[in-house]
Amino acid sequence: MKGKKTDWSAINCAIARSLSAIGDQWSILIIRDALAGARRFGEFEKRLGLAKNILAARLKKLVDEGVMETRPTAGGGYREYVLTAKGEALFPVLVALWQWGEKFAFAEGERTLAMVDRAKHEPIPPLEVKAHDGRAIGPRDYTSVRIGGA
Amino acid sequence: MKGKKTDWSAINCAIARSLSAIGDQWSILIIRDALAGARRFGEFEKRLGLAKNILAARLKKLVDEGVMETRPTAGGGYREYVLTAKGEALFPVLVALWQWGEKFAFAEGERTLAMVDRAKHEPIPPLEVKAHDGRAIGPRDYTSVRIGGA
Repeated sequence: MKGKKTDWSAINCAIARSLSAIGDQWSILIIRDALAGARRFGEFEKRLGLAKNILAARLKKLVDEGVMETRPTAGGGYREYVLTAKGEALFPVLVALWQWGEKFAFAEGERTLAMVDRAKHEPIPPLEVKAHDGRAIGPRDYTSVRIGGA
Repeated sequence: MKGKKTDWSAINCAIARSLSAIGDQWSILIIRDALAGARRFGEFEKRLGLAKNILAARLKKLVDEGVMETRPTAGGGYREYVLTAKGEALFPVLVALWQWGEKFAFAEGERTLAMVDRAKHEPIPPLEVKAHDGRAIGPRDYTSVRIGGA
């Protein structure tokens, strides 16, 4: 990010705060790989092809944000990086990015990885924003209200 | 992003390609503001507090990616930036980021903006990843399969 460094964690917008925690592109790919089972520094390094110092900084930030935590392995030889509950709760964000990319960022017939239900091997249906009564909510069907605060 | 510039649009991962198109943090906030009704350059500038040159570069990139398009206004005095269908399809990504931030990035009682259904003014329920038969799909319930390609 260029220009004036904005402290988005101080802004009252939940999207800006989420981006402050995990908005770096590498961070999202680290979370992707952690969801797919990566745990060791070397695994992330190999999957991402990322320089050690950059990977270390991203992992540290994710730990500082409470998205990941480190644990000693059973043998004690390594430390592993695993998603916390807060980190696993990012699953819908990753699914939404995956589904959008699958739909709009590949040419017809181009090779891609589709997300399928592990039990039945069927494609995961697109995420839908819905109201409590099941009505579809589109970009023109929501509004925002202030809650909390003094 | 520091270090070697990776061309993520060439990678066969839909998440990486989505990030290549809209992964810049300012781009996501521009899309947020466009979903909320902003259309004119000056509106985005005011909402985001962003330098003109950076905003112009981000808007150009979003237009180049087919996420936004420019239109002359009815009066003809301005050009407006509006989301294309591809851009509007990012709505679930933004909702997922919003909901995660609302849940994890605010202290108890801290002032925030909640997303509500415009018709009934009820909170929008959390996005859920579900299989075709309605089973909840969590981070351990999916796998990926290659489709397409030679």
